[in-house]
Amino acid sequence: MALADYEQLARNPANHSALTPLAFLKRSAYIYGNKLAVIDSDVTLTYRAFDARCRRFASALAKRGVKAGDTVAIICRNTHEMLEARYAVPMLGAVLNPINTRLDGAGIAFILGHGEASWLVADHAFGDTVGQALEQMDRPPKLVVIDSHAQATGRLEGERFETLVDHGDADFDWEKPDDEWAALTLLYTSGTTGDPKGVVYHHRGAYLAAMCNAMAFNMTAESVYLWTLPMFHCDGWGYVWAVTAAGATHVCLEAIDSRLIHERMEAHGVTHLCGAPIVLNTLLADFAERDLSLTVTADFALGGAAPPAAVISRARQIGFAVTHLYGLTETYGPSALCVWQPEWADLDIKALAARMARQGVANFAIDDFAVLRVEDGTAAPFDGETVGEICIRGNTVMAGYLKNQAKTDAAFADGWFHSGDLAVTHADGYIEIKDRAKDIIISGGENISSLEIEDVLYGHEAVAEAAVVARPDDQWGEVPCAFITLRTGPTVAEADIIAFCRDRMAHFKAPKQVIFGALPKTATGKIRKNVLREQTLKAMNNPDVMRSKAKINEKG
Amino acid sequence: MALADYEQLARNPANHSALTPLAFLKRSAYIYGNKLAVIDSDVTLTYRAFDARCRRFASALAKRGVKAGDTVAIICRNTHEMLEARYAVPMLGAVLNPINTRLDGAGIAFILGHGEASWLVADHAFGDTVGQALEQMDRPPKLVVIDSHAQATGRLEGERFETLVDHGDADFDWEKPDDEWAALTLLYTSGTTGDPKGVVYHHRGAYLAAMCNAMAFNMTAESVYLWTLPMFHCDGWGYVWAVTAAGATHVCLEAIDSRLIHERMEAHGVTHLCGAPIVLNTLLADFAERDLSLTVTADFALGGAAPPAAVISRARQIGFAVTHLYGLTETYGPSALCVWQPEWADLDIKALAARMARQGVANFAIDDFAVLRVEDGTAAPFDGETVGEICIRGNTVMAGYLKNQAKTDAAFADGWFHSGDLAVTHADGYIEIKDRAKDIIISGGENISSLEIEDVLYGHEAVAEAAVVARPDDQWGEVPCAFITLRTGPTVAEADIIAFCRDRMAHFKAPKQVIFGALPKTATGKIRKNVLREQTLKAMNNPDVMRSKAKINEKG
Repeated sequence: MALADYEQLARNPANHSALTPLAFLKRSAYIYGNKLAVIDSDVTLTYRAFDARCRRFASALAKRGVKAGDTVAIICRNTHEMLEARYAVPMLGAVLNPINTRLDGAGIAFILGHGEASWLVADHAFGDTVGQALEQMDRPPKLVVIDSHAQATGRLEGERFETLVDHGDADFDWEKPDDEWAALTLLYTSGTTGDPKGVVYHHRGAYLAAMCNAMAFNMTAESVYLWTLPMFHCDGWGYVWAVTAAGATHVCLEAIDSRLIHERMEAHGVTHLCGAPIVLNTLLADFAERDLSLTVTADFALGGAAPPAAVISRARQIGFAVTHLYGLTETYGPSALCVWQPEWADLDIKALAARMARQGVANFAIDDFAVLRVEDGTAAPFDGETVGEICIRGNTVMAGYLKNQAKTDAAFADGWFHSGDLAVTHADGYIEIKDRAKDIIISGGENISSLEIEDVLYGHEAVAEAAVVARPDDQWGEVPCAFITLRTGPTVAEADIIAFCRDRMAHFKAPKQVIFGALPKTATGKIRKNVLREQTLKAMNNPDVMRSKAKINEKG
Repeated sequence: MALADYEQLARNPANHSALTPLAFLKRSAYIYGNKLAVIDSDVTLTYRAFDARCRRFASALAKRGVKAGDTVAIICRNTHEMLEARYAVPMLGAVLNPINTRLDGAGIAFILGHGEASWLVADHAFGDTVGQALEQMDRPPKLVVIDSHAQATGRLEGERFETLVDHGDADFDWEKPDDEWAALTLLYTSGTTGDPKGVVYHHRGAYLAAMCNAMAFNMTAESVYLWTLPMFHCDGWGYVWAVTAAGATHVCLEAIDSRLIHERMEAHGVTHLCGAPIVLNTLLADFAERDLSLTVTADFALGGAAPPAAVISRARQIGFAVTHLYGLTETYGPSALCVWQPEWADLDIKALAARMARQGVANFAIDDFAVLRVEDGTAAPFDGETVGEICIRGNTVMAGYLKNQAKTDAAFADGWFHSGDLAVTHADGYIEIKDRAKDIIISGGENISSLEIEDVLYGHEAVAEAAVVARPDDQWGEVPCAFITLRTGPTVAEADIIAFCRDRMAHFKAPKQVIFGALPKTATGKIRKNVLREQTLKAMNNPDVMRSKAKINEKG
């Protein structure tokens, strides 16, 4: 019995070290020193130069007192300074807190205060909101101002980023954290209600997420990645690290603008990009409008919402290889992906798009990606019908919510991370979301998926965007109410839309009311259904209707 | 200061689990259930069937008392049973000990005894040597016999493999190890002198090695991997796990036979294979001889020895994308790879082959792959001249040698793993081996690399294989002695070979003696230079000449 002999072989500095995504930069700077790491308009950095700038930035922060466990916040567009901060701050063992650039002053102030940031690196493009935030704070963080590229929106007083970096040492000798569980990133969820929660990532998880996403997306040193996804969003779904791991090239993008995207794709031979369906949709619409002859051969990873069939279909025609990803801030971005199956090639486009719109199966570092019945936590059968909650286990699940043990405990109840998304598992094991737990509509005791109605609405040629929420109803409890933004063109009446839906789905599922106009969105572009629900309540002057999660699965 | 708050977020079952390559099988069985996992002549297994057989095998072993920390040995060709054992045994927390199939009875007996194997799974193709081994042992392991495919070479008494698997439960519910540092594989190095050492791999290292090698080799679910490399050799350089991680297909190969390899490549559309240069060389020679019209588009990873320029050149002409890997059993196989640089495309074939034959740069999970001066352990300058020892640090370095603390400590002296290989670092950071520490020839106080002479010898059209060792010499201390196997064709004289060398290198480096004949090899195909050295000693009748490692760097 050799067990004791095996156990005697110990970890030592030669055979064990912390997993950290910083190792990818060290390796790529060594191997790909002369290769382009970052293209940001007129600024281009080889891996050697990129690494040197990160070290200088880290060294300068260290000289100013930043140390392990400190929080350093940043509010910045997808520029080279943002990428540099990702690596420089963790080189000190400090935690980077990238802030959503669309937040208002109060939102920024809350995050800076809650995360206890000692420094804030701010792009002067956000001078107005950052200025408002700092004014509201008793103990504001010290400020570093990035003034490259962008139009300043307000005057910020602080050391210039380039001056700071100039003061740093390019040979700065950073060390890996002692413990790979050490905090790396702090990200506040754009909760639609209540105070944002601070999701904490660690070095181990980010390392594994990078490897997984590089593998899932077949990235190599020849890949060119366009930053259509905000880097503040889940470490850019891990690609902040994965692109560097592969020795590929980061192409920065200061704004989501179709012409700019098309220009960069052509100029730099972009092979990979990520974004929400709305980004791809806008891109496709713009390409079509300008009659661009496209020769795209890029992989587009879609996430944040299920892509409508029409979007998948158009994207494929143009040459995008589309993969639908599913994840949350709490899972380092993609926890699941809709892995392609060869037999799908034989499906017609409608059936194919339906398959490709599923959330799919576990990403590499996820142990379990499962639908569990809400009532007892057992696995839902693979019948495509039984609704339960998507629950997740694996090494790319967050450490927890900062200073919020109650919500951390709730999220990790029963040894699973609870996503709050309601889904079914199909016979092939692929998971499909039916709704957010709070978005399901319960009408006459029947569950109605708001997503199902939205999918039908997107099939109407006049509909640009659609969202469906529950409206309280004396007779049915709740009924579906649709909010629609129309494309430019001939107008459509409420009755037309309702009739269109009734022709395509069970009548009880069709919306009972249609309201036209622009849709309110969160800073990450998600439609704020809670605001729409308030609108239905205000319209009815009946604010006391309560909805409880317990009702959801009466018919589950 | 948020450090304490960050540190409060704890590991829990939802966000932390042991890294283990077993997770890849679970995931691929879920996602690629109907896809071919294993092709072994007439046996084909989908991922679902492969997973079920592994579980059954594990379950049956559990019923027979195998438990965590036990050693289970296996001696088997590259067949589906071998692959199944890789997964089934660790499912119990037990350690698989794959034994080199070319060992003799005494060698097998030593390993079984030292590793304390409680069970041995033996392919009856090795009945003769296994039978001899068991006869020598006081407490032989219990035996499971694989009788598929092969010609039995001796009668082995034990339970049939298929009977055992039939008794197992396909739903067997294995668990990950509690600790990812738990032992996974026990591999005895084919040391050319002294008792073999038992290298121990753990789950964490194998997981990372698999991810790294899948990334380095761009493996996807469409990849088809041919098993030209023995699976008993460093877990098949990690591909035992990497192929499964990618959801690719394992194509088994029961023997290294050019015709068989060509047949399998054509039949199954092989995209990836690995092996020593001699395997590729034999393959190319055979292809040329039979005038096969080749349409190869496969990645060939070469390791075990630096590939001669002629081999690289011919392989590229035929369509193999060749990558030279470097590693040891102690580093889970490839710790370095000769990463392609775009500017190499402009080099002439000779210069290109010289670049491609270098050992290269660190693989993904290796932190440091460096040449350290033997005298003081400092880094050798990047000058292409200063010789030092290749030293390695990273998470894909072994846990240690089983029951051999002295050799473990020696291997890990000063916080580095010491490879015993002497090398230089070029200006571009790429490392090139000059010799094994014990193979360097010291003549008149000058170091002569045996590899350098061999490289010249391989350039002679009549030379099929060559090896150069030191022969004691009264005047010079040592002089180079060449052993050569000639191709079929016109004969060549010793003087011709010596003249050929003197025309191409410093005269003091040219061999002083040439001996023709077959070269003795280890079970893994490495030329046994210690045997050749003994031959030179015997020839001189002077067995007392001693060589010490201390001499090596007199001029270093």
